[in-house]
Amino acid sequence: MDPTRSILLTDLYQLTMLQAYFAEGMEEPAAFELFARALPRDRGFYVAAGLEQLIELLEQARFTSEELDWLRGTGRFRSDFVDWLADWRFTGDVDALPEGTVCFPDEPLVRVVAPIPEAQLVESRLINIVHFQTLIASKAARSVLAAPGRLLVDFGMRRAHGAEAALYAARASYIAGFAGSSTVLADMRWGIPSFGTMAHSFIEAHARESDAFEQFARAQPGNVVLLVDTYDTEAGAETVAAIAPRLAEAGIRIKAVRLDSGDLAEHARRVRAILDGAGLPSVGIFASGGLDEHDLAELVAHGAPVDGFGVGTRLDTSADAPYLDCAYKIQEYAGLPRRKRSEGKASWPGRKQVYRHRDDTGRFAGDRLTLASDPAEGEPLLVPAMRAGRRVGPAEGLDAIRARCADQLAHLPEGVKRLRDPEPYPVEVSRSLHALATEIDRRPH
Amino acid sequence: MDPTRSILLTDLYQLTMLQAYFAEGMEEPAAFELFARALPRDRGFYVAAGLEQLIELLEQARFTSEELDWLRGTGRFRSDFVDWLADWRFTGDVDALPEGTVCFPDEPLVRVVAPIPEAQLVESRLINIVHFQTLIASKAARSVLAAPGRLLVDFGMRRAHGAEAALYAARASYIAGFAGSSTVLADMRWGIPSFGTMAHSFIEAHARESDAFEQFARAQPGNVVLLVDTYDTEAGAETVAAIAPRLAEAGIRIKAVRLDSGDLAEHARRVRAILDGAGLPSVGIFASGGLDEHDLAELVAHGAPVDGFGVGTRLDTSADAPYLDCAYKIQEYAGLPRRKRSEGKASWPGRKQVYRHRDDTGRFAGDRLTLASDPAEGEPLLVPAMRAGRRVGPAEGLDAIRARCADQLAHLPEGVKRLRDPEPYPVEVSRSLHALATEIDRRPH
Repeated sequence: MDPTRSILLTDLYQLTMLQAYFAEGMEEPAAFELFARALPRDRGFYVAAGLEQLIELLEQARFTSEELDWLRGTGRFRSDFVDWLADWRFTGDVDALPEGTVCFPDEPLVRVVAPIPEAQLVESRLINIVHFQTLIASKAARSVLAAPGRLLVDFGMRRAHGAEAALYAARASYIAGFAGSSTVLADMRWGIPSFGTMAHSFIEAHARESDAFEQFARAQPGNVVLLVDTYDTEAGAETVAAIAPRLAEAGIRIKAVRLDSGDLAEHARRVRAILDGAGLPSVGIFASGGLDEHDLAELVAHGAPVDGFGVGTRLDTSADAPYLDCAYKIQEYAGLPRRKRSEGKASWPGRKQVYRHRDDTGRFAGDRLTLASDPAEGEPLLVPAMRAGRRVGPAEGLDAIRARCADQLAHLPEGVKRLRDPEPYPVEVSRSLHALATEIDRRPH
Repeated sequence: MDPTRSILLTDLYQLTMLQAYFAEGMEEPAAFELFARALPRDRGFYVAAGLEQLIELLEQARFTSEELDWLRGTGRFRSDFVDWLADWRFTGDVDALPEGTVCFPDEPLVRVVAPIPEAQLVESRLINIVHFQTLIASKAARSVLAAPGRLLVDFGMRRAHGAEAALYAARASYIAGFAGSSTVLADMRWGIPSFGTMAHSFIEAHARESDAFEQFARAQPGNVVLLVDTYDTEAGAETVAAIAPRLAEAGIRIKAVRLDSGDLAEHARRVRAILDGAGLPSVGIFASGGLDEHDLAELVAHGAPVDGFGVGTRLDTSADAPYLDCAYKIQEYAGLPRRKRSEGKASWPGRKQVYRHRDDTGRFAGDRLTLASDPAEGEPLLVPAMRAGRRVGPAEGLDAIRARCADQLAHLPEGVKRLRDPEPYPVEVSRSLHALATEIDRRPH
């Protein structure tokens, strides 16, 4: 059983609520929206991601006979309810921010309009997919901004939280502008360029570091990146310099060396000098080892001669902010707008739309959150993604999504992109939304 | 394609190293060990978890013909190497800490001894599985210690990092002593008790809160937990009190109310008073909403009348420490011990074993890290898990693992269990290990 495709990857309360809706015959259309609340500390924006996997999920979502049998066997559900689940399909509409769109608190990332038993059941997995990819795309964009022009590679698979997190982190960081990932399956599945070198164990398994380098180079002459810090970084670089002529005679070019520990700026300078001194100016320096966007910014600011970075654990876990405060909330049922009023968690009611305004140079100047039914103010940010349970148009290619993200980041005000203490981006809430919220608060309940 | 079962869920460098080992004919046995380095801030111990999924992975690991074709198509690998991968199987030995064992930095969680192309290839996914479950079991144990006797439920599925993280978090928190999870698939797959109530959307979809409560109760009379904070927590509790007699006439008992926002201690006291005043002392109070172990400890310390807690996002993401500093390192190749010496990352060489010493009362008094070949000092903590690629003995049941963890936590010194600034637990490194490290450092490389 593939857990990534099971409809029972959900919270039990979705099923208990569905049983109640079934018993009451409640199946009017509901509108739910997924949005994030406040930004994490030192974050200026989000990057929307994960919509493609959500669409794939909704198109194929159904209960298998094995799952239905299991539900029956729990004794928790009425038999006629389980029979009804056998025919459950997602037949609703989805509007969403295209992947790679920069967005802000309170702005819907996804809106689902469907009979309430459909819109409700998909909640848990919808959040699970879109939250995580948005989390990682938002985090990865910071490394992209911190190290412009450097080759960035996602190295985080091993400490990502499970299989799907590893795959999705590769995808989300690629969308944000990474050059690729070390995760092979992300290459096979989505064509995300895969990068890889050697581990310390490879060096240690050989009697001498120089043997390890030479054997590795001869085994994959097209991709020679040598890890030089297993014993002593500068000594490792000297060894590279010593074997380079022999390899060159065999037609093998050393592409780069990798540094993975110690003071990377200092080591990079010394290694650069060693390589240049040996007539190897074209051998690049790639750095890794517990890095995040702040480390990258510092290395770049100090002029460390590093051509590329492997960014791993702290990217794939979004270590400084491992979750976003997001929610999927009912905004309308049976034509009537709704609003949660729990302390500290009140949300804007109704189906919403976002319009982005630009200054004369094309730079983003501010967003307006309106009711979807308000008069349009230019191009709406939320666009149709599914109608009647089917995808609208062909799937977007990853490179188109990646290009969108790059364009969005290029038009974001500099202050909003700062890694520390970013400027807030203006998001205005329309008068119509304020008025609707006030009206709903007056309703009895 | 089920990504949780693909052998290509790995780092590219595993394949490039394997190609080099293949080219060199290197296939002597290697011993690798997975261990954690320093504990995260305010953490006193780890709880080992994930071994069962690792064994399942290693038993079934192989390249499918689709994967082999894809590898061939990349043009990156020699054709004879890809042919050789077709027969790749894991035929090695695994020794490990049984799941639920409390452990400490530098202690191996897993040791793999296998021909180097086998022990190497499994690295990335081995870490990915064992790291995450150990991370979550270690985090969940803190909630268990913080709220003794309370019903604890994992509510984190939606913000867990993808599908597998959600499933594994349910399993790891159950091992640590949680009563269960809201994740239905964890119940279907492993029999982990599932818990669930209702969402705010259910209340909002009804014209009146009281209708929502009553309809829900009638639809699942066996599991009536009512969420009272959608509009006003105390008013919600009054509504529960008002409908209880009508439900009682229909033979329906309200099991609990759930609070999800605001000052939970204060609301719990007021709601308790309302329920008691209405003659409903048996209706429990369940609290949720962004909680972690520190919130639980505070609520318990202040005597808040809360009978159970839903712990979600901050558990499933291990929000205060979303990763462990762990590594899978080669310790021996072809009979010769090995040691990485990278700055700040040096590790203990050789195959290791751990012995735990107890005081007169049975309490853990300290561990000793030794060479596996040293004379035994009592029961070793690492035990055989696989031999020649096959599981040793039957799979351990989850409840046995959970009981082990409870027993381990009960014997851990109180100071080590503190949620803030825990006492360090003594782990001594044997003289034989010190001597071996010194000897290796003298070797040329």
